[in-house]
Amino acid sequence: MQAANPYIFKIKPYIPGKPIDEVKRELGLKSVIKLASNENPYPPSPKVLAAMNLALPGVNRYPDGGCFVLRRTLARKLNIDDGQLIFGNGSDEIIVLSVKAFASKGDEIIIAKPSFLIYEIAAVLSGARLHQIPLKDFRYDLEGMKAKINAKTKIIFIGNPDNPAGTYITQRQTEDFLRAVPKSTLVFFDEAYFEYVHAKDYPNVLGLMKKYPNVMIARTFSKMYGLAGLRVGYGIASPEIIDTLNRLREPFNVNSVAQAAAVAVLNDEAYYRKIAKDVEAQRQYLYHALQELNITFEISFTNFILINVGGDSSQIAKALLKKGVIIRDMAAWGLKGYIRVSIGNASENKRFIKTLGEVL
Amino acid sequence: MQAANPYIFKIKPYIPGKPIDEVKRELGLKSVIKLASNENPYPPSPKVLAAMNLALPGVNRYPDGGCFVLRRTLARKLNIDDGQLIFGNGSDEIIVLSVKAFASKGDEIIIAKPSFLIYEIAAVLSGARLHQIPLKDFRYDLEGMKAKINAKTKIIFIGNPDNPAGTYITQRQTEDFLRAVPKSTLVFFDEAYFEYVHAKDYPNVLGLMKKYPNVMIARTFSKMYGLAGLRVGYGIASPEIIDTLNRLREPFNVNSVAQAAAVAVLNDEAYYRKIAKDVEAQRQYLYHALQELNITFEISFTNFILINVGGDSSQIAKALLKKGVIIRDMAAWGLKGYIRVSIGNASENKRFIKTLGEVL
Repeated sequence: MQAANPYIFKIKPYIPGKPIDEVKRELGLKSVIKLASNENPYPPSPKVLAAMNLALPGVNRYPDGGCFVLRRTLARKLNIDDGQLIFGNGSDEIIVLSVKAFASKGDEIIIAKPSFLIYEIAAVLSGARLHQIPLKDFRYDLEGMKAKINAKTKIIFIGNPDNPAGTYITQRQTEDFLRAVPKSTLVFFDEAYFEYVHAKDYPNVLGLMKKYPNVMIARTFSKMYGLAGLRVGYGIASPEIIDTLNRLREPFNVNSVAQAAAVAVLNDEAYYRKIAKDVEAQRQYLYHALQELNITFEISFTNFILINVGGDSSQIAKALLKKGVIIRDMAAWGLKGYIRVSIGNASENKRFIKTLGEVL
Repeated sequence: MQAANPYIFKIKPYIPGKPIDEVKRELGLKSVIKLASNENPYPPSPKVLAAMNLALPGVNRYPDGGCFVLRRTLARKLNIDDGQLIFGNGSDEIIVLSVKAFASKGDEIIIAKPSFLIYEIAAVLSGARLHQIPLKDFRYDLEGMKAKINAKTKIIFIGNPDNPAGTYITQRQTEDFLRAVPKSTLVFFDEAYFEYVHAKDYPNVLGLMKKYPNVMIARTFSKMYGLAGLRVGYGIASPEIIDTLNRLREPFNVNSVAQAAAVAVLNDEAYYRKIAKDVEAQRQYLYHALQELNITFEISFTNFILINVGGDSSQIAKALLKKGVIIRDMAAWGLKGYIRVSIGNASENKRFIKTLGEVL
């Protein structure tokens, strides 16, 4: 059986991680904490739990393929038209659909390096030529990206805030950049972590969409809204772009429990803002504790921190794992000596700091 | 923003149906029944409900990307290797991934006509040439399919039992067919409804996989297992085929509540067999009631029945909808004068028969 897509084998096969219970059993550990995937450390709010519960007896029915209630709730909240939204099985799916829709062999895609791995995988599979522009001081090198733009450039991905650095580009930088991009190039802003940014100069990309119809935003319920396990994200763009993407998606791509949970989350925002405040306070705790350990890090506008552990980050990650602390080694992302740590709850963060001190 | 895939606009955009609550409001109906999507009419079993409930507080964490527990449970049950399974966001995703992996422009795909719409959509999007072989007496015309096979044929889809006819091909037909197909052509058996077939000559395709490594099976938890709303299906094939498909999927494509529910379903099979018996008894009720109304239909090996309503099926579907009964008009599938009715619970089926009698 020969693969029709010649790019498939350029992708490393996905090696699934083991569930935490398996890790515990294998390492003989009683407790393991996971600070590797930038998850919200808290369970859903009581209202969200109740809404999900209510959806369970009805899972024998197909989900609403149009996400009717979720669409209406979110469109009103964002003050946009229903037709400007597409929902996905996580915002991963929005990224993948966008590449499928707008780039193929002979085209070019520009991303940062390092960057969220799904941009790279989707680009490679499309057959488009990929330009990876190294971060400068852990910030997007927008001039470097501009220099690579040509008539073949179909998509530019901008993680804002960025993963794994946790930095952001400003309103002014965004506008300057958009002025330099041809209208035939999609500028895809991945705002997975935007809820954590309170900086005044963080860009209002939604507000720029009328002037720049080649702009698209992806957001997710997986991060601040804590629904990573249910898989629901969304894209915002012009109705024309959304129509194109909708033709490519499977009709029932967002499950019904996710839809119910996402609506409930949007109706219970105060709860989630409070949790975000807690994460932000914990970020300060981690900064101070890392400084006390004489460890440098990037100031983050997200729920994770990129930390320079100096030595062999893969060894350090392994040593942490043996003591039941799972973090992300950044060596595979080309950042030797760095780890990325999600901000957990108070006791998880304390345990991480204590264990890191022991390991170093 | 120009689409890179020139086939996108050959697809009719997906027009989402309205949720039942909206239909009720618009038509001023107090109660609406849906017999249009071949769903299990019953809620999940108490054990499955409990398992889902247990998963809810943990949805802030990403799902297990490898479906570790579900994979192990199902592999043991089917007596196959873990590496022979791929899980999808519904079996739709397995179909779509298979086409993406193995067919593109210049290739050919063979399906029946009419057939499950996703085969056609996936084939059109791939750019492959599509051969649609009309059913003969509502059965697969395997000789007609064979006649279209050539060196470019990459995939043949066989719905078994078929949707929308509800008929099946036998062990002997399957073996005869496989002998005639080159080993470079994937024969994709979609067994979404196989749990409803008790015929002794229904093929054991899994048993043929060693001899025919170009065979693949897709199954789903959406039909007899009643988890349509959660989106979980699976593919069984050689480890080589599964590896290729795995490279194309998104890492977290199956949500965590679906995984928990699917494991619980597999551990509570007796409950579901009992429900299937009920559906099968209701099928007999519907046969008799339709005969009393002098309406002809196909004998079905599934949880739906293809019914020849004689007149304008679109008008009849509309008239039924006005009275709160949603069924599937088959005119769009090229079967004018036919409707497809899912087998509901006793009261739903009675209401359907009563309303159909009034409408005709």
